[in-house]
Amino acid sequence: MEENILVKLAKIGSLVDPYMEKYLKSNCSKEFEEIALYQVKVGGKRVRPALVILSTQAVGGKIEDALPIAAAVELIHNYSLILDDIIDRGEIRRGEPTVWKKYGLSMAILAAVHYREAIAEAINDSKHPLKLHDLLVKTIKTLVEGERLDILFEQTGRFNEPYVVENRRKVVTLDEYFKMVYAKTGALIEASCRAGGIVADATSDVINALGTYGRNIGIAFQIADDIIDIFGKEEKTGKAQGKDIIEHKMGNIVILLSLDELKSGDKEFLLSLLKKEPISGEELKKAIELIANTSARDRAYEIGEKYLTEALRMLEKLPENDARKDLEELAKFILYRMF
Amino acid sequence: MEENILVKLAKIGSLVDPYMEKYLKSNCSKEFEEIALYQVKVGGKRVRPALVILSTQAVGGKIEDALPIAAAVELIHNYSLILDDIIDRGEIRRGEPTVWKKYGLSMAILAAVHYREAIAEAINDSKHPLKLHDLLVKTIKTLVEGERLDILFEQTGRFNEPYVVENRRKVVTLDEYFKMVYAKTGALIEASCRAGGIVADATSDVINALGTYGRNIGIAFQIADDIIDIFGKEEKTGKAQGKDIIEHKMGNIVILLSLDELKSGDKEFLLSLLKKEPISGEELKKAIELIANTSARDRAYEIGEKYLTEALRMLEKLPENDARKDLEELAKFILYRMF
Repeated sequence: MEENILVKLAKIGSLVDPYMEKYLKSNCSKEFEEIALYQVKVGGKRVRPALVILSTQAVGGKIEDALPIAAAVELIHNYSLILDDIIDRGEIRRGEPTVWKKYGLSMAILAAVHYREAIAEAINDSKHPLKLHDLLVKTIKTLVEGERLDILFEQTGRFNEPYVVENRRKVVTLDEYFKMVYAKTGALIEASCRAGGIVADATSDVINALGTYGRNIGIAFQIADDIIDIFGKEEKTGKAQGKDIIEHKMGNIVILLSLDELKSGDKEFLLSLLKKEPISGEELKKAIELIANTSARDRAYEIGEKYLTEALRMLEKLPENDARKDLEELAKFILYRMF
Repeated sequence: MEENILVKLAKIGSLVDPYMEKYLKSNCSKEFEEIALYQVKVGGKRVRPALVILSTQAVGGKIEDALPIAAAVELIHNYSLILDDIIDRGEIRRGEPTVWKKYGLSMAILAAVHYREAIAEAINDSKHPLKLHDLLVKTIKTLVEGERLDILFEQTGRFNEPYVVENRRKVVTLDEYFKMVYAKTGALIEASCRAGGIVADATSDVINALGTYGRNIGIAFQIADDIIDIFGKEEKTGKAQGKDIIEHKMGNIVILLSLDELKSGDKEFLLSLLKKEPISGEELKKAIELIANTSARDRAYEIGEKYLTEALRMLEKLPENDARKDLEELAKFILYRMF
């Protein structure tokens, strides 16, 4: 049951694959095609395009009208992944070498620029292109801000980037955390749902309801991601347990809530670990144990629940139909997945 | 006299500075503004926005209609400079540290992404935004192709990028050179002139004439750049003489034409120098002498003249006025400048 909704979404979302391919191949030399297509061929859950399509259907729109902009949204996600992997020096994604690792930094940067143009081509092919250009421009600028904050929330590293070293946050408040998470994850999911409403010619009330739904599940999704990062087992997640600690990231709600609660000696230990490069397996294990002994995990779930409740409340403004049911099921599933 | 037209153009072109600032500040956090504005504040000749404005005026359009899209075009140029400097590890531009050198790789990449969104915002504010989105999307994809070819025309280096090492060209034909130069330089100058025509509601014949003018002066501009690279004195150009040789670039028309002419021993010496890292001052001096003793420079000027003639022929299709005169003067000046 739990996995069903994701499988269903992936099936719906993968309808955009031929569209992504079309826009990536457009105005692309034969020789560059391999590099241009690599990132999308590695795959993905296709949650965002599925949200565009379901949002369109939930408000009475036609799936054909949703496909180009759904492709644009998934291309934005992949564009950000190519760049995030460069910025974080990530070498593996979904079990395959990342674009820069496979083709080198220069070609990866050129691929990213090419993605951004494929995105614009997909928007041009959509209904209400100017409204959508406007929405997605703001969204991408917001993604930049989210990534910028995420970098500045790191507690050490990037020694060859003096600006980052000098400007990074010594303390991260929950307010700043939510600002970062909205920008990094919530904004694009919000835009996906809004875009679905726009191409269905929905009223602005309905588009706002879809957007608020998206923003809230986006933030809940990231809270779940943070929980999975600290407590998820590598066998199930495919990622190292405690990756955020290893990468010195203070922008994780479980870490932030536990710091709030830990007694001074333990708190200092965790803070010093976030600043230590590299940390040992023993140290990582101890940090995770300390966090597990606080109520951070439970409190993170509680906060996530509030976002879900708000998301579900928004769906009540939409007509009852199958697409709305899928959106409901996704919201309920998103927080408690463990992968 | 010679310098007058550039001074005049810079004055016209700098009208876009407040527009660029506006679009870069839009949807930008206060903290990020310094980084976002850095590249455009370093300055530049503003040739491309001047071409947009003059093209608009030459066909009877209003300058106010040209300003947002002229800003977009200059932002595209600056976007490409931020990325080229990352790709070529360039540390100094216009006497100042490059964006990545000053703020680090991560922030430079985020700045570039932010520029691309400012470009879209400027297009959205222009007349005929969908036509302009379409034109500039194709142009940026073409810039990617030009930069890609320029990288693959290098004869050594980038040892940490195996894809480039394996795929680079052993031979570069003049055809391939012109393909690269059109993509890297001609396409954006062509688009600048076309955009000027589009916002002036010119007929497609007139827009095509402006575009052909732009493409031809763009290529002549690059030929001049290649000549300056090999023969220009550092005191005057601000760049190391023979920089293309130092950077192993075979994508320089003077180098290509001289290779065509050199006798076998000298040809092998120059080819081996392009593959050698690093080369000595002595070797560089000998290479420049060898090239100077061929007719490559004269032949490059002859080829450049053909592009200029074609550019000037296009201007005859436009009404006679001051703006057209400036476009003529620029075309005549472009090839024989030595800085």
